[in-house]
Amino acid sequence: MKKISIAGATGYTGIELLRLLVKHPEVETATLTAESHAGKNIADIAPSLRGWVDQTLVKLSPEVAQGCDVLFLALPHTTSMQHVPELLKSDCKIIDLSADYRLHDAQVYGDWYKTPHLNPELLSQAVYGLPELHRDKIKQAQLVANPGCYPTSAVLALAPLMKENWVDAQSIIIDSKSGVSGAGRKLKQTTQFCEANESVSAYGLGEHRHTPEIEQALAGAATGPCTVSFTPLLAPMPRGILASCTARLLPGTAPGAVTDALARAYAGEPFVRVLPPGQWPVTGATAGSNAVHLQAAADTRTGRVIVMSALDNLGKGAAGQAVQAANVMLGLPETAGLTTSGVAP
Amino acid sequence: MKKISIAGATGYTGIELLRLLVKHPEVETATLTAESHAGKNIADIAPSLRGWVDQTLVKLSPEVAQGCDVLFLALPHTTSMQHVPELLKSDCKIIDLSADYRLHDAQVYGDWYKTPHLNPELLSQAVYGLPELHRDKIKQAQLVANPGCYPTSAVLALAPLMKENWVDAQSIIIDSKSGVSGAGRKLKQTTQFCEANESVSAYGLGEHRHTPEIEQALAGAATGPCTVSFTPLLAPMPRGILASCTARLLPGTAPGAVTDALARAYAGEPFVRVLPPGQWPVTGATAGSNAVHLQAAADTRTGRVIVMSALDNLGKGAAGQAVQAANVMLGLPETAGLTTSGVAP
Amino acid sequence: MKKISIAGATGYTGIELLRLLVKHPEVETATLTAESHAGKNIADIAPSLRGWVDQTLVKLSPEVAQGCDVLFLALPHTTSMQHVPELLKSDCKIIDLSADYRLHDAQVYGDWYKTPHLNPELLSQAVYGLPELHRDKIKQAQLVANPGCYPTSAVLALAPLMKENWVDAQSIIIDSKSGVSGAGRKLKQTTQFCEANESVSAYGLGEHRHTPEIEQALAGAATGPCTVSFTPLLAPMPRGILASCTARLLPGTAPGAVTDALARAYAGEPFVRVLPPGQWPVTGATAGSNAVHLQAAADTRTGRVIVMSALDNLGKGAAGQAVQAANVMLGLPETAGLTTSGVAP
Amino acid sequence: MKKISIAGATGYTGIELLRLLVKHPEVETATLTAESHAGKNIADIAPSLRGWVDQTLVKLSPEVAQGCDVLFLALPHTTSMQHVPELLKSDCKIIDLSADYRLHDAQVYGDWYKTPHLNPELLSQAVYGLPELHRDKIKQAQLVANPGCYPTSAVLALAPLMKENWVDAQSIIIDSKSGVSGAGRKLKQTTQFCEANESVSAYGLGEHRHTPEIEQALAGAATGPCTVSFTPLLAPMPRGILASCTARLLPGTAPGAVTDALARAYAGEPFVRVLPPGQWPVTGATAGSNAVHLQAAADTRTGRVIVMSALDNLGKGAAGQAVQAANVMLGLPETAGLTTSGVAP
Repeated sequence: MKKISIAGATGYTGIELLRLLVKHPEVETATLTAESHAGKNIADIAPSLRGWVDQTLVKLSPEVAQGCDVLFLALPHTTSMQHVPELLKSDCKIIDLSADYRLHDAQVYGDWYKTPHLNPELLSQAVYGLPELHRDKIKQAQLVANPGCYPTSAVLALAPLMKENWVDAQSIIIDSKSGVSGAGRKLKQTTQFCEANESVSAYGLGEHRHTPEIEQALAGAATGPCTVSFTPLLAPMPRGILASCTARLLPGTAPGAVTDALARAYAGEPFVRVLPPGQWPVTGATAGSNAVHLQAAADTRTGRVIVMSALDNLGKGAAGQAVQAANVMLGLPETAGLTTSGVAP
Repeated sequence: MKKISIAGATGYTGIELLRLLVKHPEVETATLTAESHAGKNIADIAPSLRGWVDQTLVKLSPEVAQGCDVLFLALPHTTSMQHVPELLKSDCKIIDLSADYRLHDAQVYGDWYKTPHLNPELLSQAVYGLPELHRDKIKQAQLVANPGCYPTSAVLALAPLMKENWVDAQSIIIDSKSGVSGAGRKLKQTTQFCEANESVSAYGLGEHRHTPEIEQALAGAATGPCTVSFTPLLAPMPRGILASCTARLLPGTAPGAVTDALARAYAGEPFVRVLPPGQWPVTGATAGSNAVHLQAAADTRTGRVIVMSALDNLGKGAAGQAVQAANVMLGLPETAGLTTSGVAP
Repeated sequence: MKKISIAGATGYTGIELLRLLVKHPEVETATLTAESHAGKNIADIAPSLRGWVDQTLVKLSPEVAQGCDVLFLALPHTTSMQHVPELLKSDCKIIDLSADYRLHDAQVYGDWYKTPHLNPELLSQAVYGLPELHRDKIKQAQLVANPGCYPTSAVLALAPLMKENWVDAQSIIIDSKSGVSGAGRKLKQTTQFCEANESVSAYGLGEHRHTPEIEQALAGAATGPCTVSFTPLLAPMPRGILASCTARLLPGTAPGAVTDALARAYAGEPFVRVLPPGQWPVTGATAGSNAVHLQAAADTRTGRVIVMSALDNLGKGAAGQAVQAANVMLGLPETAGLTTSGVAP
Repeated sequence: MKKISIAGATGYTGIELLRLLVKHPEVETATLTAESHAGKNIADIAPSLRGWVDQTLVKLSPEVAQGCDVLFLALPHTTSMQHVPELLKSDCKIIDLSADYRLHDAQVYGDWYKTPHLNPELLSQAVYGLPELHRDKIKQAQLVANPGCYPTSAVLALAPLMKENWVDAQSIIIDSKSGVSGAGRKLKQTTQFCEANESVSAYGLGEHRHTPEIEQALAGAATGPCTVSFTPLLAPMPRGILASCTARLLPGTAPGAVTDALARAYAGEPFVRVLPPGQWPVTGATAGSNAVHLQAAADTRTGRVIVMSALDNLGKGAAGQAVQAANVMLGLPETAGLTTSGVAP
């Protein structure tokens, strides 16, 4: 049995990691950390874990890394990078679920996250943990940067078309509807039930920090730079992202080829489902699972293609993807602990 | 007191019309029709009206028009046009909430609604009932075509920019999140609670019938044709539309001018609110009211403008707008019966 | 036009009061207070009021009472009683929406609210503001204690049976499901969307402070004391209370008489609807209105009666009831500003 | 690997059974039946299963039983009993998730289900599939009647107190809040999103068919008959039951002993969690799992005890419990396939 620890176990991502690890046949949890709740039992903070996980929370320290094979960091942005250099000194593999090691360029990080990166020298060493695009590098990595939820949905939707050079890389518009858990567990007025419920709202237009991450990942899939207009919205559901990804088709691209290209790109992938013709993604069908549902349509009237992408922001958008990467890093079957379909209804 | 009748009073739009008319100080309801529920009391079909409306439902007939000043037709598409010619023979003014008289071109109607128009000669006589754009024509009309919910939100968002000729009319992409009541009250698998709840889904991509209506209305505001990519989505809330309207800014347009242009365009309008800087529309703030909330931002990085528009699909998107048009047609204060802020939370 | 002020205008109850006053034909708002938001415009704190109320918030002071006919206190429990004695020195009528003046006995207040009452001498002067039971006293009062949301639903359900002496006053069990807005607008973990959504939970069993209020009100309706088991629960909806009120029928009571007794008790009441046989209350049908829906059934198999009662906790359970009481106190038509059916869907 | 088939695979219970079986380490699915969808792929009817289950639906026939070790019947009430006699002729073990074999007395079945039982001779042979009470009998059974969702929550809450003879068996009042999936997947007006959402409603008061099932199961736990007042309600969530179970404490019972008695009764049970003092059950914490959360309090003021019980109506209330029983019948570890904590948020 491999040993896995979690730093930041009481946030929504930490709790979801534990839900997945409980039924993972080849791992056991070592240490769970939480700063303000240290000393308490995790089940008192996360009642859904009552009877499944019975462990006392401790504070994060360098020793945490020493007792385990993989350490998940489910910490806030800018907190992870305060700990990673010290933690890397152990042999432990680290999967950071924050944004701190996703961007290759420290300058871009500083521009969007409004603070200088504390250890820019680690950025080239960190691997972007999207197995469908970077499986081989993940196998070798000691430090994996788990992709953001919005970028995962958008990049899986568009990367195959970018690789084929079928769309205008300057024309990409992504409108993403996210469940409220994406905003985290910290108390906020906008995520109170009575404010978030029964309401859709936009936020951070033109400024959302996932924008450069999407652009970097798509540029990597394509042959050159791309510029993305990214609109994030909050929808009244706990989990789920539905991304509408629109782009101008380049001349000469056969509209009918688009869905086929997606199907071809993800043949053999255990978690990406390109839906049959006529079926469009529904976030509810992915909730609780590590699946991504994709469908595309080329609109000859407008000369544009739209790819719709649905996933669970806490699943393939965070914890599920991290477990998938851990499986790859540990040489386990990639689907171990993740053989669970969506919870519907 | 003016007399108002409703054909199709037991659907969601009919019920909302009644909710507004109950507190309208200058009208009284004459006849309420419903085909399958004829003979029953409306409060047995719509329990929210219990104690407020106590009236027996009858079947629609030409006589219904004779007893009233305004007749609202809250009937399905293609049903309205079976009745309108006969109903117009009375002096009664008609506001049709279906799509049957919204498009000027019978050919376009036939292409998108998959059935020939039964009385194309009436299309030129019908006035598109968006008071902010066509108030004077509405005053004179006997037949008003109440705009669709998606078109209302999109057209109010973009018309001022089209008039200024600031955006590329071929670059418009509209991604609209709608509450489930937009799908009507008829039983469907996709609108069952357990299927629609906690889930966002796309439908009718590239084929939604509101597309030509949006294009026609925007072309009317601009100096030439425009082509729109329109993506409708269902969000897990009963009411509300949030439209993300993106377009390429034409060279020479000052990004800072965009919000000002909206504010200028709607100064004096009783129901359109251009939000202060930094505030983005939230559908929940408009629920139950006839208000539209707008905010815009120009993104110099991408050269695009985005206008977000929120309204209640049953309010300004249907029943509220119809009452507003009725007020205009009857010479009443335009806000009569509509002085109600959003129901929040 | 009568002048009405609100202390605590930015909580959910304050916002709902404003929603009702905006369309009230015979009042205008004078002063709106809020402590932490003083100096801001109310529409920046409550976006649903944008364009309907355009007023700057001030801090509460004795002067507030001097400029108006009625002052609503939408303040937290124990805060109201710090201000009321000073505010009463003006001629202004006061409707306190907190619990501070609902209980007649200062000792009971101290026991349940865990703090001594600051001005017990005012308790006998305050009138319990349930117009259906105390209309005449409300007319004469300067200080009205607006009933709690749970007590309103339970007392209207059971008072007619208590008056008839049909039920065992020691056998009453009330299980009440409340919308989340009942917990107020202050940030709490349990009312965050992701915790409250899609979940029903119990709280405060055996300790909820509305218990003595219900017992006092029912004892007033009956000929002697009564003891109530009260179970409050949070349901995943913004508004609404559904109370299941069960009691043992005393020997000799005809089961069939129960619904008739309710209908008789509330004949002529503008806001209480006893539903037709076979229809059970649904909270959604009352949302946004001042209506109460009631239905009863006697179960001869068990010898018990159950009365179900639905209302909007912010409507008849708080702001609507307060406006109703204000109308009574000001000699206005009791339904002024309240002629609005439920917002459904 | 054991072979398991499902009759009625496309309803909510059938889909949940498949979700659990997909990750069950020791079973594989044999045949899936569905009458109206026969010939289609299950993933086209249940998109959450896309990529996890790839199987064509067939019609139910006697052969279905021959190819498997356990056959789950997720069929409507009164349909199961049309098939069971024929299906039992094979060696296959049958777990019927309908109500057809839950009641021991055919007369009671006929009274409450309004139709005579077709094979009353099988009622004595069927075992009531609540492992916490009847584990040994389940091991030996060929035909198991899977308990109803409401009875499971109520019986687990009250059985320990009945066994101790601590409560008055004529004083039991159960008020149960259920998620909408409990109403099944068939189209109904009351379960449309816009009707069920944001609303709590009562139904079937005094007539709900789970009443005699609860009474029978509690009488079995006690030393004599009991009479229950049962109030079922629909709450706006897809899954979950929260049961408020109130009863009069018999003289001499120490209030403090109640929670201890629960803890003692379920020590060693893998799925029943008696919560620590001060924590009350929340349905959301059990969603997606086979767990039951219990908490009790004795109220000395009223002389009553209340036990709150939360579970997932599709989990421990249906599919999870059926898998648990199947594990018992097949000699597998009782938690196999069920090691999954609640999906929260």
